[in-house]
Amino acid sequence: MKNEGDTPRAVTMRDVAQAAGVSVSTVSHVVNNTGARIGRDARERVRRAIEELGYRPNAMAKNLVKGGSRFLGLVADAIASTPFAGQIIHGAQDEAWQHGYVLLVANTEGNEEAEASAISMMLEHKVRGILYSTWYHRAVDLPAGLAEADTVLVNCYSTNGAVPAVVPDESAGGHDATRMLLAEGHRRIAFLNTRTPSPARDGRLDGYRRALDAAGLPFDPDLVVDVQPDQGGGYAAVDQVLAMRATAVFCHNDRVAMGLYDGVRDRGLRVPDDLSVVGFDNQEVIAAHLRPALSTVALPHYELGRRGVRVLLGLDVPEAGTGPLAVDCPSVPRHSITRPSES
Amino acid sequence: MKNEGDTPRAVTMRDVAQAAGVSVSTVSHVVNNTGARIGRDARERVRRAIEELGYRPNAMAKNLVKGGSRFLGLVADAIASTPFAGQIIHGAQDEAWQHGYVLLVANTEGNEEAEASAISMMLEHKVRGILYSTWYHRAVDLPAGLAEADTVLVNCYSTNGAVPAVVPDESAGGHDATRMLLAEGHRRIAFLNTRTPSPARDGRLDGYRRALDAAGLPFDPDLVVDVQPDQGGGYAAVDQVLAMRATAVFCHNDRVAMGLYDGVRDRGLRVPDDLSVVGFDNQEVIAAHLRPALSTVALPHYELGRRGVRVLLGLDVPEAGTGPLAVDCPSVPRHSITRPSES
Repeated sequence: MKNEGDTPRAVTMRDVAQAAGVSVSTVSHVVNNTGARIGRDARERVRRAIEELGYRPNAMAKNLVKGGSRFLGLVADAIASTPFAGQIIHGAQDEAWQHGYVLLVANTEGNEEAEASAISMMLEHKVRGILYSTWYHRAVDLPAGLAEADTVLVNCYSTNGAVPAVVPDESAGGHDATRMLLAEGHRRIAFLNTRTPSPARDGRLDGYRRALDAAGLPFDPDLVVDVQPDQGGGYAAVDQVLAMRATAVFCHNDRVAMGLYDGVRDRGLRVPDDLSVVGFDNQEVIAAHLRPALSTVALPHYELGRRGVRVLLGLDVPEAGTGPLAVDCPSVPRHSITRPSES
Repeated sequence: MKNEGDTPRAVTMRDVAQAAGVSVSTVSHVVNNTGARIGRDARERVRRAIEELGYRPNAMAKNLVKGGSRFLGLVADAIASTPFAGQIIHGAQDEAWQHGYVLLVANTEGNEEAEASAISMMLEHKVRGILYSTWYHRAVDLPAGLAEADTVLVNCYSTNGAVPAVVPDESAGGHDATRMLLAEGHRRIAFLNTRTPSPARDGRLDGYRRALDAAGLPFDPDLVVDVQPDQGGGYAAVDQVLAMRATAVFCHNDRVAMGLYDGVRDRGLRVPDDLSVVGFDNQEVIAAHLRPALSTVALPHYELGRRGVRVLLGLDVPEAGTGPLAVDCPSVPRHSITRPSES
């Protein structure tokens, strides 16, 4: 460990280029990770020169609008309990760095005092703006402190619509999940929705209905069951699903699907031969590792973070009056869907 | 959204106290969330006054050693893919804030260029020091940039032992997991360990052996099987476990236990009646929601982050020459262990 007082050496990108025997622009490409094709050998020489000379890229200083703030803030409510906030942070950080900003991340775990402190801290550091994010998609009342900063809401929106917001396109996601089942020939598709009022509940139901409609199928409210949105809710709904003679189930999320799997197995049946299942979220540790692996639709947390920064910096401008900017939820086909045995 | 140029109002804690009709020290307790008992009514009045006057606590400025840095850095390698990094960040942030520091968090997702940029950025901001953390416990080669800062390793350690480190006590965790099974009367306990060489592999095996030894049982290497440390590894090992006539299994992690559950069920058997199971990690979305819920041992990520900050700030001083500071892994009993049917 060295002492704090050490003075950084004033090594320039030119010094690195000279030592590595490459052009300054090659160094710049390597340093800024631009994706330009630089030979393995040249890249290695640049890295070695950077290390030997102790060069510090300082992407921030280079890219910054002069005199502007170097910081963006990101307030996240549940970084410790799900990987979702982490993905938002990852996307926001990648985009922020690309434009010369450092992301100040504050975790509140839903605590209002921590939230107020975090926002104060960010304001004191004169952030260029603040991303305010929630781990599940919902309406929020804006904390008072945010009135003093440019703000973009990520995975949430303000009830009065006064603040720009970036959210997942729940309806398109619900449509695509249902469509994955329809495409295999299913006609009797149950929907285990959440019982918690939320944009996810309304949007995914809307998408389910639109997909049925596009396939020429009537909407049957008896096929929709509201459950607790976790493994217990899926497990408890198995008998109802079987009584409906549904050949497939669209689950509100991957956790519900995990519980449904357990219930199906306890009754001596199999996914997908006896019942096809599609989830929502693409929570990796569950979806990719159930037996069979779960076909699902991904919540685009990385992209939400990235787009949030782009809106904050004015690089993406949501159309006026159209509400939050809706980001696609990509389909992730795995092995939990097959053709219905009746067909 | 307001413009950046707004001047913050110079409201003091005294103003808040006056408006709320309480003492300055009461305001201080509320603002700093000290845990002191303040009546509901007074707390509410303080909050209202803070909001009406637009007071900003600025805990940082108050607590700071004058002239020192306001920042601590935390480099995390996998914030987007597991909740583990989030828990480290949560613990580190709570402790940092308590001492007047803001945590600069950078996520690298294992990318070396991102890591170098993150460390550069932190050095430019003259952080007081840097926590360097990994999502699983392992040895690391220190990135060159860290030589310029006070560093504490969190959930990892340097091969030469030159840098202070805070890690989970794998051996004590393995001991306690095995002890949970022994306490119910199990004598033939299989151990599905990871096949990946790591401190977790060595430590948990050591703990398993110590627990057997303390119970007067011989170590039988035939009961230890090395598997891929995920659901697939647990699933593939079921027949081996059953052939051993083990009545209980200690799984290297909760993911292995999840796969083992699936395999046990596929053979028409039940956890815990036919086989008791204990995991490791306490990865909530799995452990708390398997059927039956999984008894396990928690990796103390929050505490690792918290202790890392304490070591960085000199509040905890690891004894010289004793290696990394080892943090307890608490037992989390749920419902996957019962007495063996033979006993």
